[in-house]
Amino acid sequence: METDSCSIETLIKTDDPELVRRSARPEGTIVDVNGIRIGGKEIVIMAGPCAVESEEQLTETAKSVRAGGASILRGGAFKPRTSPYSFQGLGKEGLEMLERARNVTGLSVVSEVMDTRQVETVARYADILQIGSRNMQNFPLLKEAGRASKPILLKRGMMATIDEYLNAAEYLLSHGNTQVILCERGIRTFESSTRYTLDLNAIPVLKQRTHLPVLVDPSHGTGIRSLVATMAKASIAAGADGLLMEVHYKPEEALCDGSQSLYPEEFGMMMEDLRKVAVAVGRTIHVL
Amino acid sequence: METDSCSIETLIKTDDPELVRRSARPEGTIVDVNGIRIGGKEIVIMAGPCAVESEEQLTETAKSVRAGGASILRGGAFKPRTSPYSFQGLGKEGLEMLERARNVTGLSVVSEVMDTRQVETVARYADILQIGSRNMQNFPLLKEAGRASKPILLKRGMMATIDEYLNAAEYLLSHGNTQVILCERGIRTFESSTRYTLDLNAIPVLKQRTHLPVLVDPSHGTGIRSLVATMAKASIAAGADGLLMEVHYKPEEALCDGSQSLYPEEFGMMMEDLRKVAVAVGRTIHVL
Amino acid sequence: METDSCSIETLIKTDDPELVRRSARPEGTIVDVNGIRIGGKEIVIMAGPCAVESEEQLTETAKSVRAGGASILRGGAFKPRTSPYSFQGLGKEGLEMLERARNVTGLSVVSEVMDTRQVETVARYADILQIGSRNMQNFPLLKEAGRASKPILLKRGMMATIDEYLNAAEYLLSHGNTQVILCERGIRTFESSTRYTLDLNAIPVLKQRTHLPVLVDPSHGTGIRSLVATMAKASIAAGADGLLMEVHYKPEEALCDGSQSLYPEEFGMMMEDLRKVAVAVGRTIHVL
Amino acid sequence: METDSCSIETLIKTDDPELVRRSARPEGTIVDVNGIRIGGKEIVIMAGPCAVESEEQLTETAKSVRAGGASILRGGAFKPRTSPYSFQGLGKEGLEMLERARNVTGLSVVSEVMDTRQVETVARYADILQIGSRNMQNFPLLKEAGRASKPILLKRGMMATIDEYLNAAEYLLSHGNTQVILCERGIRTFESSTRYTLDLNAIPVLKQRTHLPVLVDPSHGTGIRSLVATMAKASIAAGADGLLMEVHYKPEEALCDGSQSLYPEEFGMMMEDLRKVAVAVGRTIHVL
Repeated sequence: METDSCSIETLIKTDDPELVRRSARPEGTIVDVNGIRIGGKEIVIMAGPCAVESEEQLTETAKSVRAGGASILRGGAFKPRTSPYSFQGLGKEGLEMLERARNVTGLSVVSEVMDTRQVETVARYADILQIGSRNMQNFPLLKEAGRASKPILLKRGMMATIDEYLNAAEYLLSHGNTQVILCERGIRTFESSTRYTLDLNAIPVLKQRTHLPVLVDPSHGTGIRSLVATMAKASIAAGADGLLMEVHYKPEEALCDGSQSLYPEEFGMMMEDLRKVAVAVGRTIHVL
Repeated sequence: METDSCSIETLIKTDDPELVRRSARPEGTIVDVNGIRIGGKEIVIMAGPCAVESEEQLTETAKSVRAGGASILRGGAFKPRTSPYSFQGLGKEGLEMLERARNVTGLSVVSEVMDTRQVETVARYADILQIGSRNMQNFPLLKEAGRASKPILLKRGMMATIDEYLNAAEYLLSHGNTQVILCERGIRTFESSTRYTLDLNAIPVLKQRTHLPVLVDPSHGTGIRSLVATMAKASIAAGADGLLMEVHYKPEEALCDGSQSLYPEEFGMMMEDLRKVAVAVGRTIHVL
Repeated sequence: METDSCSIETLIKTDDPELVRRSARPEGTIVDVNGIRIGGKEIVIMAGPCAVESEEQLTETAKSVRAGGASILRGGAFKPRTSPYSFQGLGKEGLEMLERARNVTGLSVVSEVMDTRQVETVARYADILQIGSRNMQNFPLLKEAGRASKPILLKRGMMATIDEYLNAAEYLLSHGNTQVILCERGIRTFESSTRYTLDLNAIPVLKQRTHLPVLVDPSHGTGIRSLVATMAKASIAAGADGLLMEVHYKPEEALCDGSQSLYPEEFGMMMEDLRKVAVAVGRTIHVL
Repeated sequence: METDSCSIETLIKTDDPELVRRSARPEGTIVDVNGIRIGGKEIVIMAGPCAVESEEQLTETAKSVRAGGASILRGGAFKPRTSPYSFQGLGKEGLEMLERARNVTGLSVVSEVMDTRQVETVARYADILQIGSRNMQNFPLLKEAGRASKPILLKRGMMATIDEYLNAAEYLLSHGNTQVILCERGIRTFESSTRYTLDLNAIPVLKQRTHLPVLVDPSHGTGIRSLVATMAKASIAAGADGLLMEVHYKPEEALCDGSQSLYPEEFGMMMEDLRKVAVAVGRTIHVL
């Protein structure tokens, strides 16, 4: 029977999965991506378009997020789309564009992998492999990614409990990959004024229960451009180790998620605000 | 059919209720409580015990939150409890204790009203009438409170959409009471690692759609003491106009919500952190 | 930590509230309304309009549901409406219309009470007092209804757990009223293809945990006329002791919930199907 | 703005995916599995253990469900498990046991496929390929299964809207596989008295919007043995074309989902009840 007086006094659970639990590495995990340290005092910003659409779109967007202060470029070459008739991504051609954008800007690259058969290929091009929300419990993919040589950005399932999320990360660690970054990206609730409900409570809960770095994706989490900067500030205040954000050089022409993508100038202005909040909580934003 | 690319570009709805909608008062409503201006540049802190339990408990707690920097004392004399066998509050005796605590500390007082027949009585003692989450759609109570002479703190229903919440506030305004403060306090979702899911997205959504001040209650929203300070910081970064928090001079002896109540010293330390975040977003904490 | 293998083997909880728990009356409670026994082998049908709108509307609808096989007439005189500008019900005039409809048709009457100050009045006119979903945790109302001389139909809150629901019923029993009928009416979930998600699992769960009769309201539960008859059949197969349904003589002119109200002829056809399902599970539909 | 009076009058959406929408095949799809017609007047029962554990366990359970009236044997050789340390299934050895159980009993076989690389193998052994709840939006797997030569049982994601579910099925049809069976298996909600909330509303909603057959899995949907038979009856009353259920010859020794698995004798008794409800709604249970 539920009582009014909640009895939870601590979040430390002795049965949290053994490799990811906080006590397994009390000092915290730092994931090093080409010298960018994720999980330390510095906050790392990852930004870019939802999908890689063209050489121009990617390069222009990459330059602008680099100028604004991002350290890592995001962009999907393989896209999970609700409808089979939506743009499915450029595939290997998209990965090659990401590689060229990296060479031009100096940004590292994070890109999604959806299929066990793609892991090797994506790992050749990307610096971080992203496993998306819909694949958080794709166990064969987790096992394959657990054997990969690149760090993994594992997004929380939109309907996954924290317990399930930690277990999904445990799949990666128990298969050998200790370079794992978590990312809250919104959960599904009854509320429909936002696309998802970005669950910032997950940040301190995860920080208490696991040693892995925790990022937030306010773009998918809200689905609404005018909320992204505000929720990004709140994420940093709540202790996030970094942010993953969608920026597009021409959002109104985006093939995917245009309405939640920031304009480059918005991104730049937001970054100035983020730096102030970071300082207020004793941190700084990583500068390339 | 849902599409991957969300089409919400603006939150302004032309059919939001006419009195609460942002365009009805673009400059924003400021609720004045004994000179404390809620909804302006200053952030207002309300703190105190869940329930009024005794003269000593209330006075000691009130003094400590005053010392820590709160401007308004919270404390329930009439308590909504899941079980009929739980402590139901001290009733009128509790209101009298609140009055004495106000006299001693100079803090203004917010206290809950649950019944249409209590509105007049509570309004004689409290400076702000609180309508709790479970009564957000208690329409007779909203009508009665709409005719009261005191400001109303209307908490969001744990199951209420933003649309329903704005309509509940509209009941108050359309019955004559324009001194209304909103308060996000956590919604019910599938996630059980926190007592509720504190929905910070609601802050910018509400600020865009209505002119009313928006507070956050991170104590009920999380139900876990060790998360309160972090979520309080995030709330301020997200634009909250104030916070409502539970503090108890001896949480382990509390008759209600002890595990989410801060110790007085925790409250004081948190306040220092909150001041820094407030400055980072261009605001300050109100000082009595 | 959640495990894949769910360990719930029984639903009997030793800490269920003491008066409502199954073991307090293993043979089950039968609520007698003018000789109609709710909670026994016979299934009881309650039907009528969402709101009492006019003498003609009520009488015509009452006659048709009586002809179709209903035993009890539903109809709201006091209406909880999301917006203050929606039709709020005819109040006492509506109660008088209900009394006349009862005299004309021989149907007993169930009608909603929303305010502690209305309990006595509604109890003079109605045979069963309904407490609606939004008031399931309106504790002063529960206490007042617990002292009333008429049976109570307590609807499940749209966001209430079974634990909370049983505790709300305990308020009624512990204040003296043992004539309590429960009613599942849909819960709030992420799914938006129906207005709410009618939770039929609640029927066997409640039947195992409490001795009180359990009804289902498929009209509010789905919000869609074309689903009502199907979900009514499923409710009976799942063990419901009765149904509460909206029927309107002219749904397209209804002031409230028209799109979920059945046409009288649909109601009659559905009743024939319900009789067959009732027999298949060893029960019959009560005939006046 | 949400209004009290819900305006949904029909569920037919002109933008439902073109191949799965009801109007694409108004007479309904019948999936033929070795002469067993799924989606017609007859209701088809699939039963067996959660996971294939041993020759004895599978054969004994298969014989008992055949004796009880099932037509198709379920059993997982590849198991999606929350924890990497839980039993992960016997793999190909399990598929061979399923083949021998089919030869012994005459039952057809449904078994889960989790990885694009397993599709061909599982398709050699199983008569129906199951895609589980966690893989409903595993788009590479859907594409591969869309090219397979065997019918697909696509379970609804525990967090998937009906819109998303129909789009997932559209992936299968648009890649060439028209032999698709849907299966409601419970969604995730705030209610924790059942493992999931089995959403029976989905049955009539899906039957109106698509021509594909619709099954229900009351074992996973509730997670509690004592609820399965009741919810199975309700599913048939709600229009399900079949049921998928867990039966184990020794549930207390099961490596997976023991607490929701029926004992063989319970299964047999339930089948007698199901036959009565089927007749009441104008259908019969398929007999091998």
